[in-house]
Parts: sequence; structure tokens; C-alpha cells
Amino acid sequence: MRAHARGKRSLRLWLRLLRCSSQVEKRIRVQLQREFSTTLPRFDLLAALYRRAEGVTMSELSASLRVSNGNVTVVATRLIQDELIAKITDPRDRRASILCLTPRGRRMFARMAHEHEVWVTAMFDDLTVNQCADLMELLGTLRQSIEANPL
Amino acid sequence: MRAHARGKRSLRLWLRLLRCSSQVEKRIRVQLQREFSTTLPRFDLLAALYRRAEGVTMSELSASLRVSNGNVTVVATRLIQDELIAKITDPRDRRASILCLTPRGRRMFARMAHEHEVWVTAMFDDLTVNQCADLMELLGTLRQSIEANPL
Repeated sequence: MRAHARGKRSLRLWLRLLRCSSQVEKRIRVQLQREFSTTLPRFDLLAALYRRAEGVTMSELSASLRVSNGNVTVVATRLIQDELIAKITDPRDRRASILCLTPRGRRMFARMAHEHEVWVTAMFDDLTVNQCADLMELLGTLRQSIEANPL
Repeated sequence: MRAHARGKRSLRLWLRLLRCSSQVEKRIRVQLQREFSTTLPRFDLLAALYRRAEGVTMSELSASLRVSNGNVTVVATRLIQDELIAKITDPRDRRASILCLTPRGRRMFARMAHEHEVWVTAMFDDLTVNQCADLMELLGTLRQSIEANPL
């Protein structure tokens, strides 16, 4: 009976967690389209390059993103055409090439990141400082629980 | 300065929420593949039909699922071929057709749902009853906050 209650409780919690994260993600997708005529995979790729000013190889990029390898190539190719990112020779290894933001891509992403923060802040607006701290801590506990209980 | 701190706090919280939900979802995808050689879109479609024993139209189904309309058709077509679901005439409207689980699909989904609950319960295992209740409530507050703050 206890195990049954625990199962139902975990399932309800997971569904609510999924619903929250889907809602936030959906709002971000809608706003990226509306304000910048762009998509979440493009935003994510620019964000990954913004954080690594020294540039990254295509495979490093694929590993760090939510999208699959093939899609990363498609998204990157379009961003190169749009001159928001560039493929250059890796200064550390002249046989390899790396991707980096162009100055225009860097300016564009800075604007998008600012708006992205405004959207997310608005969605979390009704949580108090203490509620944010509690949620942060509980999600940390959950993350540890997931890692501590492999199947 | 306050607004700045609030923005950073919201962003950190959103990234942690996204990471948790992505980790749980990824584990479920891996387990569905490993234990049932199936995918999350197939599982989600079967789950939607399991909850609605009277059957649903294709458009009702599309609206309730995470995947896009075109993909629902593709997934449904494969499940019909596998004889896990069936397309039948809607008894309420003989010009329309609805999808429902076959007896085999119902048995198969019941097994998958049981295992799914085991996986989710394991991932949430280190949270106490009180922590589960707190997390449930905070996510409820977040959901209300998202709805109360449209852009």
C-alpha cells in the first residue's frame, strides 16, 4: 500500500514538473518566433557559442545541445548563411575547423538573451525569493536523486 | 540591481528545472527503448488512448499530445500496423472515425505503464514525503505564475 502511494505521488510530481517545463519552453518558442522570427534550436546554438568565445568544434557543439547531430549541422549551416556564425580554422589545430559567433551574431544574441531573461523573469514573477530558493534546493535534491538511482 | 538579481535567479531556476525534466525524460526514453523497443511518442499516444476508453478522433489526439499533427498520423499508422490500436467508425457519428486501443494494445500499455511508474518512482526515491509535497506545491505556484503573467 505504501509503495503504491509512493508510485502515484512520484508520477503526479513528474507530470506536474513536465507540464511546467513544457509551458515555459513553449512560451519561449512563441516569443522567439514573435520577436526575432527565430527558433529554439537556433537560439540554443547561438547561446552555446556565446558562452565559449574561443569557438567550438561541431562535435563539441552537438554534445552540448538538446538537438541531434544531424540537426545541429542543418541549424549551423543556416546560421552561417545568415552570417550570424562563421566556420574558421582552429588556431590550436590548423587541420580542424571551429564555429564562432560573428560580431553581428554576438550583438543579435545579446539582444535575444536580454529578452529571454525578461520572458523567464515574468513567468517566475509570482514566486517569492524564499519560494525560489526552496524550489532551487528541491530541484537540486531531485537531480541528485536521479543520479543516485540508476536503473 | 534588485531587478537584475531577480532576472538571474529566475534564469538559474529555469535552467535547473529544464535540466531535471530533460534528465527524467531521457531516462524514460532509454528505458522504453531498452525494455519495450519503443519510443516516447508511441508511449504517449498509447497513454492518451488508455485514458479515453471511448476512443478519440485524430484531431483530439493531436491536441492532447506533445508531438505535431503530422507526426501523430505517422505514429498512429505504425501502431495500427502493429495491431496495438485500431481505427473504427465513431458510434456517435457514423461519418467520423475514432482511434482506440486493441485488447492487445491495452495489455501492452498496462505493462509499459507499470514499468514507467517503477522508473519514475526510482528517480524520485530520495525525496521525502514532505519534500514531494513542497515540490508539488511550488510547481503549482509556478504554473499559476506562468498563467498569471502572459507577455
